[in-house]
Amino acid sequence: MALARPNPRWLARTRGLTSQVRAYSAPGDGTIPASKKKYIPTSGTYPLGFKAGSAHVGVKASNTRFDDLALIASDTPCAAAAVFTTNKFQAAPVTVSRDMLKKRSGNGIRAVVINSGCANAVTGKGGIQDALRMGLETDKCFETSTPGDDAPRSIVMSTGVIGQRLPIDKIVSKIPSAHYNLGSSHDHWLGAAKAICTTDTFPKLVSRTFTLPGSDKEYSIAGMTKGAGMIHPNMATLLGIICTDAPISAPLLQSALTAAVTKSFNSISIDGDTSTNDTVAILANGAAGGQEISSKDSEAYAAFENMLTSFAIDLSTLVVRDGEGATKFVTIRVTHAASYSDAKRVANSIARSPLVKTALYGKDANWGRILCATGYAGVDSIIPEETSVSFVPRDGSERLKLLVKGEPETVDEERAGRLLESEDLEIEVELSEKGGEEATVWTCDFSHEYVTINGDYRT
Amino acid sequence: MALARPNPRWLARTRGLTSQVRAYSAPGDGTIPASKKKYIPTSGTYPLGFKAGSAHVGVKASNTRFDDLALIASDTPCAAAAVFTTNKFQAAPVTVSRDMLKKRSGNGIRAVVINSGCANAVTGKGGIQDALRMGLETDKCFETSTPGDDAPRSIVMSTGVIGQRLPIDKIVSKIPSAHYNLGSSHDHWLGAAKAICTTDTFPKLVSRTFTLPGSDKEYSIAGMTKGAGMIHPNMATLLGIICTDAPISAPLLQSALTAAVTKSFNSISIDGDTSTNDTVAILANGAAGGQEISSKDSEAYAAFENMLTSFAIDLSTLVVRDGEGATKFVTIRVTHAASYSDAKRVANSIARSPLVKTALYGKDANWGRILCATGYAGVDSIIPEETSVSFVPRDGSERLKLLVKGEPETVDEERAGRLLESEDLEIEVELSEKGGEEATVWTCDFSHEYVTINGDYRT
Repeated sequence: MALARPNPRWLARTRGLTSQVRAYSAPGDGTIPASKKKYIPTSGTYPLGFKAGSAHVGVKASNTRFDDLALIASDTPCAAAAVFTTNKFQAAPVTVSRDMLKKRSGNGIRAVVINSGCANAVTGKGGIQDALRMGLETDKCFETSTPGDDAPRSIVMSTGVIGQRLPIDKIVSKIPSAHYNLGSSHDHWLGAAKAICTTDTFPKLVSRTFTLPGSDKEYSIAGMTKGAGMIHPNMATLLGIICTDAPISAPLLQSALTAAVTKSFNSISIDGDTSTNDTVAILANGAAGGQEISSKDSEAYAAFENMLTSFAIDLSTLVVRDGEGATKFVTIRVTHAASYSDAKRVANSIARSPLVKTALYGKDANWGRILCATGYAGVDSIIPEETSVSFVPRDGSERLKLLVKGEPETVDEERAGRLLESEDLEIEVELSEKGGEEATVWTCDFSHEYVTINGDYRT
Repeated sequence: MALARPNPRWLARTRGLTSQVRAYSAPGDGTIPASKKKYIPTSGTYPLGFKAGSAHVGVKASNTRFDDLALIASDTPCAAAAVFTTNKFQAAPVTVSRDMLKKRSGNGIRAVVINSGCANAVTGKGGIQDALRMGLETDKCFETSTPGDDAPRSIVMSTGVIGQRLPIDKIVSKIPSAHYNLGSSHDHWLGAAKAICTTDTFPKLVSRTFTLPGSDKEYSIAGMTKGAGMIHPNMATLLGIICTDAPISAPLLQSALTAAVTKSFNSISIDGDTSTNDTVAILANGAAGGQEISSKDSEAYAAFENMLTSFAIDLSTLVVRDGEGATKFVTIRVTHAASYSDAKRVANSIARSPLVKTALYGKDANWGRILCATGYAGVDSIIPEETSVSFVPRDGSERLKLLVKGEPETVDEERAGRLLESEDLEIEVELSEKGGEEATVWTCDFSHEYVTINGDYRT
């Protein structure tokens, strides 16, 4: 499929932009940009009873050095839940993993197996067979706890180019190596987080501990994600894998994940494109003990859902930090809305506007474009005369008002200039005094580098 | 409002991109890029009983040379209709013109008066007063045909920066000059088309003749438009003014315009942003004689609607030809859909995808991104196994199939490369064999220049 001829004239024009251009072979040359090193943890607190590992397959023939197969496994069969892409074109691993979780009602899961370098998308029936085989071969690494129950137990994920079949024999031959390499140290987790990367410039790993009401246990949660836009050479993917040693029933795990993803992974936008492979999965094995969360009305469930939402926000915003060509990390808060969905629709409209995103890149306090994207969001409850727009400084200083109840403010330009110099920006749009709901969406700017990265030929 | 400090580092990085960067003062330095000259007519066939004129106001203080006030007038009171932006934040001229047309039921209209350089948007009650005054002062140039009927008769349009009041005294003082300058020659029409431009790189003017069933008359239609994205320094605007000497009742004129705009002005996409000022108006004075079209079921009405749709497509696609930073003119046809709205939703989703647009800029036959944008368009009737994607050459040669019924094709890369070199591209997405509806959307690519233009500071 590749159209590999670069256009010399165009390449010449982009000279000087190359410093920020990422390598196109997953996972690049492994060099982490200096500005991103602060996002990579040097230690972590990992959930009991989980192990992570990776192995080198060479899914892309050009990758001769880097692990591209990751395995996350629970020592015991555990509860699992997942949220999948809503794209009509769903990759084989999405179909296979969804069916598997449905058949098992989210119970008795042992592992997540992920390859990078090939998305196994738009690959027909053969692709489905490959994804099934990848799961079944992973299952073979583990003894089933219930003899006679031979239904698949592994969640399968793939990310990389579409329209190409997986080199499934090569992958299958290395699953035992990934299993052999399993371990519970920070380096094991970080190694797996690296192995799922494609054009990401840094691995994305978060861990923390938490407690639950009515329990004296300390629980841990850890997660990894990948994604940097929906990218070269066809579409990359947002994948997330989260593990916790807290005890929670499978249906409640699904409910908590769905709620958390709405306010995290589904509230980030790089370019507004939703891939065929997007999947976020969570495994909970209860290895830290305590009473299982089994009632949605319990305090423990509410605390778990809140914790998971906050954790998923931390994890998913790392994807925005790695947005292709991004120079800004932008928090868009829409407040005083009639409903969460109204607020989110406006926030998404602003986050998707190429005009807003290029203005932020150009450090231009262009409230007109923000207002305009608010106005075409398709939200009936907007009242122009009640709408306000501000920049909210991250240093706690007073907000910079751009528009107050529909009237433009005289802006302190020097201050606006200073605010726009910082990497982190927050925009608040207040819709009305009457509304009490709000939504936050995280996005990044559109830069010359974005065009360079995404306009480049596939190789 | 302006944050005028350029960022030297960023400017340095964009060096070499400046050749295609347009000037930021409306209407630039008046130089037409060589590649755009072919879109400017050197003659035309203009409707009887209409005159066009322009005058220099200096709405923007920096504009000391170019006409920025245009007037299009009918010799006699005529029928008029208009389609306005659906943005919740509507500029004062939109509100005022809509109210005026409603009060007059689209009858007895004399003129359209348009200023560039300031959009009169987000300007509160004062802005409404300004727009009303601009219309009333225009009315004074014409004798009303019905003594005692002093309701406004002029459609008012503004385009340019938002959040700034019009220099209304200056504008009003030059309306008599624009009236004095009225004439019916090609140069008069072209002069008016130039005066409404902002960051457009060329004036957009189309004219043609047509006949109607049951009439031996030859009719004329002429139109001008402006727009090049929703642009510097806050939001520019798409304006369209169409005049015909055919006789048609005001309600049917509205009906035909609404239908035509759906398939033309509302089927083009530069960056997906809908401005606060977008307005397309049509005036019909019947000066060429013949029987008035007064029944929607008549052959004449059907012919008029078809003619107007085709004319509006010619006119509106000139805006895409002038898309900010665009190097490609892309026709996206979605066929075999269950409904027109399904087809259009998919076409719009593809046209808005930054990933598709950057791939086209990079001359990358990336069908994965086209398929992906199809998949997230939110259309339930899509069946992956029945979806096909092709490039359709403009030279009549055989189509280049990329995906056939969900299966990737082995692509002739050399041919794909040749096709992608041309300025005009056509992409066809076939949704299903069963569907019989189709929609076409015209768009352009996303280039480094787009980011340069839109990331630039406001001045």
